Amino acid sequence: MELSKKNLNERLHQIYDVIIVGGGAGGLSAGIYLQRFRLSSLIIDKGKARSFWMQELHNYLGLPPNTPGKVLLQQGKEHYASVDGDFLNAYVEEVIDEGETFAVKVKIGRVNSISAVFRSRYLIAASGIIDNLPPLAEMRNVYDYAGYNLHVCMVCDGYEMTDKKCGFFAGSEASIEEMVFNLSWFTPYITVFTHGSFAVSPNMRQKLQEHGYPLVETQIQQFLGHNHQMTGVELVDGSVIELETGLISMGSHYHNTYLQGINLELKGNNLVTDRMCRTSHPRIFAIGDLKVGLNQVVVAASDGALAATQIWRDIRHSRGARRWEEHLTVNV
Amino acid sequence: MELSKKNLNERLHQIYDVIIVGGGAGGLSAGIYLQRFRLSSLIIDKGKARSFWMQELHNYLGLPPNTPGKVLLQQGKEHYASVDGDFLNAYVEEVIDEGETFAVKVKIGRVNSISAVFRSRYLIAASGIIDNLPPLAEMRNVYDYAGYNLHVCMVCDGYEMTDKKCGFFAGSEASIEEMVFNLSWFTPYITVFTHGSFAVSPNMRQKLQEHGYPLVETQIQQFLGHNHQMTGVELVDGSVIELETGLISMGSHYHNTYLQGINLELKGNNLVTDRMCRTSHPRIFAIGDLKVGLNQVVVAASDGALAATQIWRDIRHSRGARRWEEHLTVNV
Repeated sequence: MELSKKNLNERLHQIYDVIIVGGGAGGLSAGIYLQRFRLSSLIIDKGKARSFWMQELHNYLGLPPNTPGKVLLQQGKEHYASVDGDFLNAYVEEVIDEGETFAVKVKIGRVNSISAVFRSRYLIAASGIIDNLPPLAEMRNVYDYAGYNLHVCMVCDGYEMTDKKCGFFAGSEASIEEMVFNLSWFTPYITVFTHGSFAVSPNMRQKLQEHGYPLVETQIQQFLGHNHQMTGVELVDGSVIELETGLISMGSHYHNTYLQGINLELKGNNLVTDRMCRTSHPRIFAIGDLKVGLNQVVVAASDGALAATQIWRDIRHSRGARRWEEHLTVNV
Repeated sequence: MELSKKNLNERLHQIYDVIIVGGGAGGLSAGIYLQRFRLSSLIIDKGKARSFWMQELHNYLGLPPNTPGKVLLQQGKEHYASVDGDFLNAYVEEVIDEGETFAVKVKIGRVNSISAVFRSRYLIAASGIIDNLPPLAEMRNVYDYAGYNLHVCMVCDGYEMTDKKCGFFAGSEASIEEMVFNLSWFTPYITVFTHGSFAVSPNMRQKLQEHGYPLVETQIQQFLGHNHQMTGVELVDGSVIELETGLISMGSHYHNTYLQGINLELKGNNLVTDRMCRTSHPRIFAIGDLKVGLNQVVVAASDGALAATQIWRDIRHSRGARRWEEHLTVNV
């Protein structure tokens, strides 16, 4: 059921089999599998998964390629509710490993917020990442285009950029090195923007020049365009650079601070997992963008299935088989 | 485009980047990703993927839980066609590793069939498995119920069997050992059927008896029921055992004979892959039920994304970056 400030008392004294932090594609898929394994689960979601911002999912098998990310999430939430999963809109502040259980401390509500603690045997970290965006004075201007023709994922949207004049919005020299030359697979008409936020080495300047990619280091005033279609960039000096599309590559914020008290193996910022998405802690699983792997909606959905299945195997083995006679109260 | 006997000559002299054997969930997802990576692909499908038989997909994120498997496949096929993928209805007889390329020999058409050879740089084995069914005199009788309330996958459909009187149709003592006691997680009201096809050890007899699960070794005459709902089993001696659901566990047929000439690492019948679905051959990937892992539609779809992305990375690295000047013919 949908939990809120009003009814959460009903659940504070139970121990869930699994608490899932994050109600995006990974968390919802895990929840659906867990409930269908007849395990109890609670999804705690603070809203606005990364896929929530995607105007069109172009590569998710089974959905028409113009399906908005929020449609997938809404369908998943209904699906999860149909198998009696518990869902709470809240922010997870901290997870404490109590040995047999986890205590999950949450803050509920932005106004007159209250705190509460839920408990579970297993934890699935499915809280994902969110992309850093160009820090303009008027962020509304960025939101007008991000997720439309101003992209954040080359694997997802490179195809849409094919042979278009593309602005590459870099957060560091490393992001230029990692991404620009791969982006040229889709389009070689790349202009690199630093927004004046970092210095570019002589080596990189030369490399960009050799490839014919202009480098713009002046700060950006605003994106230009209309009806969510970005058509260029206006710099603070008033000059305008025309573009047909853009790729933002300024790093990501990882939603994982609630795990800080638990010593989990990381590779860079990503949690290391085995092939069933188990982290270095035997009762904590990580799925989707938080873990090492490819950041794709369908991968997150699959991760949810894997983590849920492994948790079911663990719990099933610990409880053993049921005998026919155990349930004579049922009329068979 | 859709290839057939009539137009296949147009494609016999090209080298595809990737040929995908199998047009189920995994193959279609791989094809969609590959085409969106601007790689050329051909899906060769003999029809009737395992998911084609699923009357309702209950656990695929984004689709309502009563979506038939064939609706997913049809949507995927349209999606793949919309990004200009080639699709051929044919049976793959053999794959020959020619060093830089694979020669894929196919037989097209059941009547007046012709042979043809297509070539590609990479191969994705996505041809899956199909479940063995109880070998009754009248197989139509099995098909009437299989995929409805006579299931083949406990992970998928265990939930639907909850606390129901369930027939377990075993293909070997090993399948009893592996499955029955796990099935009791969902329902303890299990009757085990051997169809007289193998001997049951004294140990297993005792174990089943201890759990209260009747063992039926008489051959099955037919399933009983109506409107695709199986209500029981009639044995050859005329006796009837009432059931509410069933799970078939008689092993699977692996669609992999075309790979016999290539020495790939196996674990049991499954191909061993790395986390991007690459087999022990650097240019052969395996996805979905053919590889080691969980046999689920969403996992196969994710595997397709992973394999396609890794192949794209390989090819992209081998070709290097494009310079802006390379395409001055385009009006920029």
